[in-house]
Amino acid sequence: MAEKLGLLAGRGDLPKRIIQQCLKEGRPFHIVAFNGQTEPKLVDSYPHTWVRLGAAGKTLSVLKEQGAKDIVMAGRIKRPSIAALRPDAWTLKFLAKTGAGAFGDDGLLSKLIDALEIEGFHVVGAHELLDDLLAPAGILGQTEPDDQAKRDIEKGFTIAHNLGDLDIGQAVVLQDGLVLAVEAIEGTDAMLSRCAELKREGLGGVLIKAKKPNQENRADLPTIGVRTIENAHRAGLRGIAVEANATIIVDLQGVTDKADELGLFLIGVEK
Amino acid sequence: MAEKLGLLAGRGDLPKRIIQQCLKEGRPFHIVAFNGQTEPKLVDSYPHTWVRLGAAGKTLSVLKEQGAKDIVMAGRIKRPSIAALRPDAWTLKFLAKTGAGAFGDDGLLSKLIDALEIEGFHVVGAHELLDDLLAPAGILGQTEPDDQAKRDIEKGFTIAHNLGDLDIGQAVVLQDGLVLAVEAIEGTDAMLSRCAELKREGLGGVLIKAKKPNQENRADLPTIGVRTIENAHRAGLRGIAVEANATIIVDLQGVTDKADELGLFLIGVEK
Repeated sequence: MAEKLGLLAGRGDLPKRIIQQCLKEGRPFHIVAFNGQTEPKLVDSYPHTWVRLGAAGKTLSVLKEQGAKDIVMAGRIKRPSIAALRPDAWTLKFLAKTGAGAFGDDGLLSKLIDALEIEGFHVVGAHELLDDLLAPAGILGQTEPDDQAKRDIEKGFTIAHNLGDLDIGQAVVLQDGLVLAVEAIEGTDAMLSRCAELKREGLGGVLIKAKKPNQENRADLPTIGVRTIENAHRAGLRGIAVEANATIIVDLQGVTDKADELGLFLIGVEK
Repeated sequence: MAEKLGLLAGRGDLPKRIIQQCLKEGRPFHIVAFNGQTEPKLVDSYPHTWVRLGAAGKTLSVLKEQGAKDIVMAGRIKRPSIAALRPDAWTLKFLAKTGAGAFGDDGLLSKLIDALEIEGFHVVGAHELLDDLLAPAGILGQTEPDDQAKRDIEKGFTIAHNLGDLDIGQAVVLQDGLVLAVEAIEGTDAMLSRCAELKREGLGGVLIKAKKPNQENRADLPTIGVRTIENAHRAGLRGIAVEANATIIVDLQGVTDKADELGLFLIGVEK
């Protein structure tokens, strides 16, 4: 029987999928829910403990008490203000040791996973727990990219990997060769929301999401969902290209259905 | 006596400065004003012709009729929709030849300047007409960057030059090592406006503006003005670093006065 799983739960559908998988396998689990982040209705019916995001020391002692050796981080976490973070002693020590803020998200998450493993935990990626979580390669719906979109996809991955090397972000929007928007801290949805007024009529536009080359796969793989399709459509884009086997699609059927309904292409590209 | 100058005028204070300089030198000039772009009060009292932005052929015939051999492009131009552009025959040919949209702003402007020179014009940069237009090196106001800001400035220029190599944009905002925002098509003011809610309290934040390494200096040097200082302050940033001798500051005295008033540092960095 698998080790008891500690689920550090953010927002969105991914934590729910992991809970369902544990229930299906009869695997024991304990949820760490974060104040102001995790949705209460997600955890209400299952074993859980509420903690502050800044209280990583508390989180670790909860997981130790519960005998959870494996840890998975799943779901979106809003970047907190320093004031809202109120780091506890363990967190302060961690931030001091790693040089808080000297990293992008990627650097900080890698260091956090290192620190958790030193504490004796085994950190796993959500995609190691759920079979069908990563985007497959190829055209994933009924709509195909045209030649212009294919050129944007190719150029977009080059740019996204360059941005990833700089630990800036995972997403970029291209329209007919021109970079309309680059994602940094604001996230994909906020980036898409400004594209509607930046784009030109009738020239398409593609969202490209790619893994950062040095990214920590167990914590922060690029993710899309039904909402991403809806937001890309609202921004007037023609489709979405993601890195195959390196992007989480939480509900592939729901996502391709939505893309088909809205006439957007969705493609997984092997890189 | 200097050649008659053709001034292709966008928004902002720069076209006005060039008009004043021509008047001071007694240099003849003719303004091409663009519908929906140029401010009418700028041109009302001087020789000018209104044209559509998409009517580059008309613009060239106006300049030829007027006997203007030197051309300067000055001021901001809003990126038009294709519908609003309604390209004339010359413009269509130009766009077809250069592969419209296959370039970023930088690529397109370089090609446009090449095309103008082939037509027999001599394109000059605004900074060649106005002595004190480029940012000098060093601390330009009374406030100095602290050590954290200096680290952000150094990292910011590395990132900005990488972004420039990709012909993405000229500006980036860093906060304590983290990239808060990257400028693409939206422009610096729009980028700054989203930083207020992305930044963390108490950790500063710096706007870095740099020339793209392959940039056409006669058309699109990075520019800051009093408004940039105000917007950076509104976003909660501590200061601004620009590339010395490669950034236009339209009103250096006004800009440093505003920076001093708001307690922001402003520094020109030689790269």
